Amino acid sequence: MTPEQIIAALKQLMAEGDAPGKVLTDPSDLATYGTDWTRIYTPNPVAIVLPKTTEHVQSLVQFANQNNVALVPSGGRTGLSAGAVAANGEVVVAFDNMNQILDFNASDRTVRCQAGVITEQLQNFAEKNGLYYPVDFASAGSSQLGGNLSTNAGGIKVIRYGMSRDWVAGLKVVTGKGDVLDLNKDLEKNNTGYDLRHLFIGAEGTLGFITEATMKLSRQPDNLTVFVLGLNDLGSTMDVLNTFRSKLDLTAYEFFSHQAMNHVLAHGQVKAPFDTEAPYYALLEFEAVSEQVMEQAMELFERCMENGWVLDGVISQSETQAQSLWLLRERISESIAPRIPYKNDISVVVSRVPGFLEEINQVVSDHYPDFEIIWFGHIGDGNLHLNILKPEDMAKEDFFEKCQKVNKWVFEIVERYQGSVSAEHGVGMTKKAYLQYTRSEAEIAYLRGIKQVFDPNGIINPGKIFD
Amino acid sequence: MTPEQIIAALKQLMAEGDAPGKVLTDPSDLATYGTDWTRIYTPNPVAIVLPKTTEHVQSLVQFANQNNVALVPSGGRTGLSAGAVAANGEVVVAFDNMNQILDFNASDRTVRCQAGVITEQLQNFAEKNGLYYPVDFASAGSSQLGGNLSTNAGGIKVIRYGMSRDWVAGLKVVTGKGDVLDLNKDLEKNNTGYDLRHLFIGAEGTLGFITEATMKLSRQPDNLTVFVLGLNDLGSTMDVLNTFRSKLDLTAYEFFSHQAMNHVLAHGQVKAPFDTEAPYYALLEFEAVSEQVMEQAMELFERCMENGWVLDGVISQSETQAQSLWLLRERISESIAPRIPYKNDISVVVSRVPGFLEEINQVVSDHYPDFEIIWFGHIGDGNLHLNILKPEDMAKEDFFEKCQKVNKWVFEIVERYQGSVSAEHGVGMTKKAYLQYTRSEAEIAYLRGIKQVFDPNGIINPGKIFD
Repeated sequence: MTPEQIIAALKQLMAEGDAPGKVLTDPSDLATYGTDWTRIYTPNPVAIVLPKTTEHVQSLVQFANQNNVALVPSGGRTGLSAGAVAANGEVVVAFDNMNQILDFNASDRTVRCQAGVITEQLQNFAEKNGLYYPVDFASAGSSQLGGNLSTNAGGIKVIRYGMSRDWVAGLKVVTGKGDVLDLNKDLEKNNTGYDLRHLFIGAEGTLGFITEATMKLSRQPDNLTVFVLGLNDLGSTMDVLNTFRSKLDLTAYEFFSHQAMNHVLAHGQVKAPFDTEAPYYALLEFEAVSEQVMEQAMELFERCMENGWVLDGVISQSETQAQSLWLLRERISESIAPRIPYKNDISVVVSRVPGFLEEINQVVSDHYPDFEIIWFGHIGDGNLHLNILKPEDMAKEDFFEKCQKVNKWVFEIVERYQGSVSAEHGVGMTKKAYLQYTRSEAEIAYLRGIKQVFDPNGIINPGKIFD
Repeated sequence: MTPEQIIAALKQLMAEGDAPGKVLTDPSDLATYGTDWTRIYTPNPVAIVLPKTTEHVQSLVQFANQNNVALVPSGGRTGLSAGAVAANGEVVVAFDNMNQILDFNASDRTVRCQAGVITEQLQNFAEKNGLYYPVDFASAGSSQLGGNLSTNAGGIKVIRYGMSRDWVAGLKVVTGKGDVLDLNKDLEKNNTGYDLRHLFIGAEGTLGFITEATMKLSRQPDNLTVFVLGLNDLGSTMDVLNTFRSKLDLTAYEFFSHQAMNHVLAHGQVKAPFDTEAPYYALLEFEAVSEQVMEQAMELFERCMENGWVLDGVISQSETQAQSLWLLRERISESIAPRIPYKNDISVVVSRVPGFLEEINQVVSDHYPDFEIIWFGHIGDGNLHLNILKPEDMAKEDFFEKCQKVNKWVFEIVERYQGSVSAEHGVGMTKKAYLQYTRSEAEIAYLRGIKQVFDPNGIINPGKIFD
């Protein structure tokens, strides 16, 4: 089919039903909808479709199978691994117009959402109904639920609330073969054969499209209270984590380096938590539900001071102060953005973080002593965001070339530590060449086999995760 | 191959390596290892193998593929759906001698176990190390971890701690093709393609054998406190659940009928919680971590009394009293066992429990007014155990025949309520004919497709879940 024929056919499909979908072909739309936050590949879709219903999506998949047209899913386009990029003349299926909250059950604490519902929209809906959707991260204002689930997004509260996966009661999907499946029927307990729901979560849209999800909600947290602690050394992050976790249910345990904080402070509007300088900082959050819990937390803090793990610390006295302490962590990405950071999102088991981080520091500084390394991340989950800043006087191309070498060294260390080359951003296209550092060849063969079952013609998001 | 040739070959395989495995062919062993708690099918295995290592299991699978021999996994043999029954001349692979705890990491709070580790062994190990393994159920003293994971076992603490699935950091499996896969490498966060770990969990051993699992542990619960409440009617179970859950993190929310309690009291050694009679009872458990939490719980209790949902109630004042209140729920199965109960383990979304239960009551009592129905279960998860007792003067065969009719009516109601024909016991052979009441034909076709990927020769636990 020629592009013109494809576009004409898509327009006909989107006219079906009571609520018509849309087809966009304007160059600026193609550029916008054809990419994500990676900006590495040049977007080149043939058209953008904005379906309104699951039936539209099913028609699109049937059409794509009949005519060998490749489809690429598009959510909030906040991805960091080019999982939703259309660089090869694909048709983009964007869920922006499937953004309705369809149903809410206060007793079951579940909310049925179309795939295009924005994370923040769900968070706000939960709050308005006296409940809480605990999956939260920097892109919550624009990321969509379908995309969150396709990458099993994590974020800042994983240590207490788990990943997106843990909040899915049911999914409606259209497989690559064009079948509509209602997965798990929103049940808490259902032991009737393989749980296909968990196969679609984290599949980066390569098995089919998620069109609806029933999400669970939680009770609202009570009096969230934040410690920021200056740590003596990296090993202390583990001692402090173990000490607090033995007595309290932490809702967050984040960390950042002195360098990271310096960038935030230089960026302005945020002030240092205390005068003492420390090489690393930890941010702990917990529910201070009673005086007793607060006393316990203070005791744990003192124990950490006495053991020399913590050099100094501050505890929030109000919600406002808690929020301003969070800025020390939340503003890092923004403050280093002008320095064009090379980013990597990697993980190991929690106890191995210190050794892992030191080895990466070593290999980078041995080869490139002028590279500034910024570490931060969800250390309570073993998830580190490695950011290397471009030296001011180095050409961009030169820097990126060197970073490709760094990639290889980093992933070799990841492999040796039995870690993951992508903790929460997915594989997409940017990590595809490094998949074998985390998954064995035998495992990858099974991934391909499963892809074949759900998408035998290879029309759904081809070339993502593996070729 | 003749049975004799198979046995000779198995003996050779089990002699490999430093730690030799065993082959059993004694008729009493065949009978013991060839079945589970269902006792419906006559066990008829050709031999029992007791491997010692993952390498043994891999050799067995390779042998089975080369010689078209069917293998059936066997754990603690406490299954209730004939998922681990060898009725057709299969070789049973029993994990009783792969029962070692291999590794423990206090900092990561993970413990690496062989598949044959017994649930209680893991619970005790956790406790000895100041931690907690929260998945608990009646068969904890003999069920094995591999079996728990293969049925994604739930139990009495799901409302707070989730299912077995939620505690798995990593799995070592031998697929039906004979590949050894290390799934998820024990990582908290790992977003590198389809999560095969979740595919093996709940697969009832039809995709391959789980040989090791790294399980997460939790902090120990603090001052667990129990309410037993007499409820005004079935609808009140939901009001009470919602009231308590809005302010407290419940660790259990169980229910049982007046009839169920009567059997427990008649069975002896347990006394009624209070004098007031109620049609239904709820057992709530929570961590009374402070005076404030306790005051809050009492306020919630009073609110439930004022609204007429609760007729009477008692709260435990000590650990001993909490344990004796739990007996009211835990002793039900044992107390009705002499009456040869027809059992069913079904679920719906929580809010639909009252209507669902009433409809089943109605259809059973309309057709068989002399059948005594005993209800109990994990109502906080929408999971009900339906037990129908054989009238004293009815022949066993007659009763079972009538129960087959009941099955059909119950599952039609399950289908209409979008529920599950097996909430936590699995499909195995006993629910195979009813799978389509919960999973669509299209879904079942994908299950078959996945089976084909992992076990193309159909040698691993054939005839379970689907044919």
